[in-house]
Amino acid sequence: MNKFIYFVPQFFKYKRNKYHTKSKDMAKELTSRSENYSQWYNELVVKADLAENSAVRGSMVIKPYGYAIWEKMQAELDRMFKETGHMNAYFPLFIPKSFFSKEADHVEGFAKECAIVTHYRLMNDPDGNGVVVDPNAKLEEELIVRPTSETIIWNTYKNWIQSYRDLPILCNQWANVVRWEMRTRLFLRTAEFLWQEGHTAHATKQEALDETEKMVNVYADFAEKFMAVPVIKGAKSENERFAGALETYTIEALMQDGKALQSGTSHFLGQNFAKAFDVKFANKDGKEDYVWATSWGVSTRLMGALIMAHSDDNGLVLPPKLAPFQVVIVPIYRNEEQLKAISEKANEISAKLKDRGISVKVDDLDTKKPGWKFAEYELKGVPVRIAMGPRDLENGTVEIARRDTLEKNVVPVDGVDQYIDDLLEEIQQTIFQKALDYRTEHTTRADTMEELKDMLDNKGGFVLAHWDGTPETEQKIKDETKATIRCIPFEGEKEEGKCIYSGKPSAQRVLFAYAY
Amino acid sequence: MNKFIYFVPQFFKYKRNKYHTKSKDMAKELTSRSENYSQWYNELVVKADLAENSAVRGSMVIKPYGYAIWEKMQAELDRMFKETGHMNAYFPLFIPKSFFSKEADHVEGFAKECAIVTHYRLMNDPDGNGVVVDPNAKLEEELIVRPTSETIIWNTYKNWIQSYRDLPILCNQWANVVRWEMRTRLFLRTAEFLWQEGHTAHATKQEALDETEKMVNVYADFAEKFMAVPVIKGAKSENERFAGALETYTIEALMQDGKALQSGTSHFLGQNFAKAFDVKFANKDGKEDYVWATSWGVSTRLMGALIMAHSDDNGLVLPPKLAPFQVVIVPIYRNEEQLKAISEKANEISAKLKDRGISVKVDDLDTKKPGWKFAEYELKGVPVRIAMGPRDLENGTVEIARRDTLEKNVVPVDGVDQYIDDLLEEIQQTIFQKALDYRTEHTTRADTMEELKDMLDNKGGFVLAHWDGTPETEQKIKDETKATIRCIPFEGEKEEGKCIYSGKPSAQRVLFAYAY
Repeated sequence: MNKFIYFVPQFFKYKRNKYHTKSKDMAKELTSRSENYSQWYNELVVKADLAENSAVRGSMVIKPYGYAIWEKMQAELDRMFKETGHMNAYFPLFIPKSFFSKEADHVEGFAKECAIVTHYRLMNDPDGNGVVVDPNAKLEEELIVRPTSETIIWNTYKNWIQSYRDLPILCNQWANVVRWEMRTRLFLRTAEFLWQEGHTAHATKQEALDETEKMVNVYADFAEKFMAVPVIKGAKSENERFAGALETYTIEALMQDGKALQSGTSHFLGQNFAKAFDVKFANKDGKEDYVWATSWGVSTRLMGALIMAHSDDNGLVLPPKLAPFQVVIVPIYRNEEQLKAISEKANEISAKLKDRGISVKVDDLDTKKPGWKFAEYELKGVPVRIAMGPRDLENGTVEIARRDTLEKNVVPVDGVDQYIDDLLEEIQQTIFQKALDYRTEHTTRADTMEELKDMLDNKGGFVLAHWDGTPETEQKIKDETKATIRCIPFEGEKEEGKCIYSGKPSAQRVLFAYAY
Repeated sequence: MNKFIYFVPQFFKYKRNKYHTKSKDMAKELTSRSENYSQWYNELVVKADLAENSAVRGSMVIKPYGYAIWEKMQAELDRMFKETGHMNAYFPLFIPKSFFSKEADHVEGFAKECAIVTHYRLMNDPDGNGVVVDPNAKLEEELIVRPTSETIIWNTYKNWIQSYRDLPILCNQWANVVRWEMRTRLFLRTAEFLWQEGHTAHATKQEALDETEKMVNVYADFAEKFMAVPVIKGAKSENERFAGALETYTIEALMQDGKALQSGTSHFLGQNFAKAFDVKFANKDGKEDYVWATSWGVSTRLMGALIMAHSDDNGLVLPPKLAPFQVVIVPIYRNEEQLKAISEKANEISAKLKDRGISVKVDDLDTKKPGWKFAEYELKGVPVRIAMGPRDLENGTVEIARRDTLEKNVVPVDGVDQYIDDLLEEIQQTIFQKALDYRTEHTTRADTMEELKDMLDNKGGFVLAHWDGTPETEQKIKDETKATIRCIPFEGEKEEGKCIYSGKPSAQRVLFAYAY
């Protein structure tokens, strides 16, 4: 690192390799991960301008920089959904209260904490104190702000489906949903959050099962290839299934504090919602049957996974494929004349990079000093920083710093576009590999309850252990350890054994962890 | 038209030029515009699979085909917003009730019909009848489902702005909003609708005024270049301004029934919201001042404008730039062998078109007959239809039908991609020109109240007339004619005259019309 320090602008009185040290003294300094992981996360989200709490309890404001990352995620996911044959649609925000009673497991299993609309008009306060709810404008039936849309969508599908010719229906919706969470954390658990929810209808059980699996694979591909977050795919145990589902498939990611984060789920709903909303179709033989259903979703919670999987004590580390801008160019200058010459060159480089589809910001604003800018873009996780001073201009070079490793290199301007193109690819790979190495190191096996507790408490991470497959045993292990079964993994060896709790036979090891 | 009928597939027992006639007998036949324009619109929206009413009063379901058009609109607008320096963000769905009382004009002028959240938990009905609202889960302060977001956003901006260095803030939000409308119509007026709302903060009045104008120009460009809908830009009179705005700029479009449709508005909010939420900044001289504001928005109402501006008695007519797919290829065949050969060629053509960035659907499903498909894609407004039969295959030709004029042409397969590329451009222009011609024909002048009434009743459309500039006169003209001032146009001659109602001096003619 820092092998190429050859130019020290006197103006700044500190060396290039001290810019970073300098930044630690600034207002935006972060608590370190080792000091307090949870506080590090909370501070990072706010200081990197990703999101903040709003005036409404539990609801967040997603700030422009944070939203730009979410938009990148949306764009890729949306492309993947369309490539797999889905179309977007939009269903109502409000759901009549009575709909929730129609699917028994759904209403029982789903949290009843939700926002309830009871009135539809305000009026001037007779006492002159602003506005009050008009008591005469009470709804006959209360409306629930959607916590998820299975009920309203299956009530709609009823009118869309008569025969097998109307199937499959492959819809996705990008929407906001509300679940009245008592303890909230930015991105990880908020009362209102943004998500997509796919809702598909099929003529056969097998087709619905295939769809459920297809979509968990789409999520895994997205997580690994774009977020650079390795995930373990598997099925949820009965206790952890979505309310109303016969199977829930999940992708589970590991955060740097050794806790798991469920990052996306895909549900096989059987004929439960079709039965609840009386959605039948005539099959090819003219016989009537209930329609088979799936639903699947990821949310702004993915932002939490992205942040916690890669970032460090200096701030965000973003995979190039999801960075709002991949490269920032910072001119270093003593006077107007130098700024002009350097900016000109910087804009040339920027244009070349843009031709390659690389997103670039040239920050030549003179209200902030380069040291401040270096710290700021480090905090914001910009994958590549190019610094350019008068000596660079003379020598035909630039200094390139990569965010993930903090390494710096001086390279010739000629060919810098190819260099950066390759570098971005390398950073994407390196970030993924680092997260994968961490996970490999933090995936262990336990053959007794004591080993499980020991692993969880002293090492953290995923622990593979045998389980007898019953909800009772799962609950007891949870009561004793606070760990949950994250999933029954699809991949890996299917070695038989004995349940670490009951000693009963087990078909394969399952994945335990503390979880967000 | 139909000059090139050279091949009549016996199989169908009716000629190519009768496919359309055939379609009239089908289930999806529309009421004609002349018979009942309003019913024609309502039927078209549902039959073309754009949207439908939901189980929730006043809320619509936007179906996949309709949503695909909205997505195209969103993509273009979003690109235009970003090109003009804006970033997206996301603010809470819920707004504390007290926020609405803070800006006096806003709360007075804004409709008080809105959805009010009073509780946050359901519970099992003690009588066993599903779920009921938990009376113990009453909110201390009610939350309003946003009807627009000025209040919550300015309450947020307060924390983002300290000095002129933090300005301008140029944010946009894509979101759902709710206004409890009593009489609703799909897309035109629904309780919940989708929109974008831009909210910008500036250091000077002039900068905010420039932004207000810039965005109404963006809307006008979008309407004309993408929707192919000509619009008149202008300022709203005081009566028609947004509640809390000092100026509202608008784009007004003319529908085929002679009624105007306000299609987008951009508001100069002065310092009203900054004062209401105490948002001050230190300017370059270190003095404190309130921040200047704008807001601007378009909604799914644009879908209504798009549908009503162009469509005909056969169904939708879509401008190619917003069509979910621009070309459909329909094979015409008697047996499997023919289908296979034709589909192969169709896919070749499709690939060539896709290389040019043209979106294509090859419909070789054998569950529907070509006649049905022709009617269906006409109803759905697909700009270009390619039909291909066995004789075409032999002759190296295809039959091309354009949706806007219903003209058909037989052309060689060689070079068909270039032909269609040009044709799509021509259709886009033709649709715009047709709407412009209609507007030109239906824009008249009135110099007396009698002339105004006569024009409105017997011809419809826009009527340019002199007005003395007072809200009182505007109200009286409205009471007598039911017409409103759509805008004080920015463009056109600024001829002085006398108010048609009061006889007082007028600086320029303003635009009257019946309006949606």
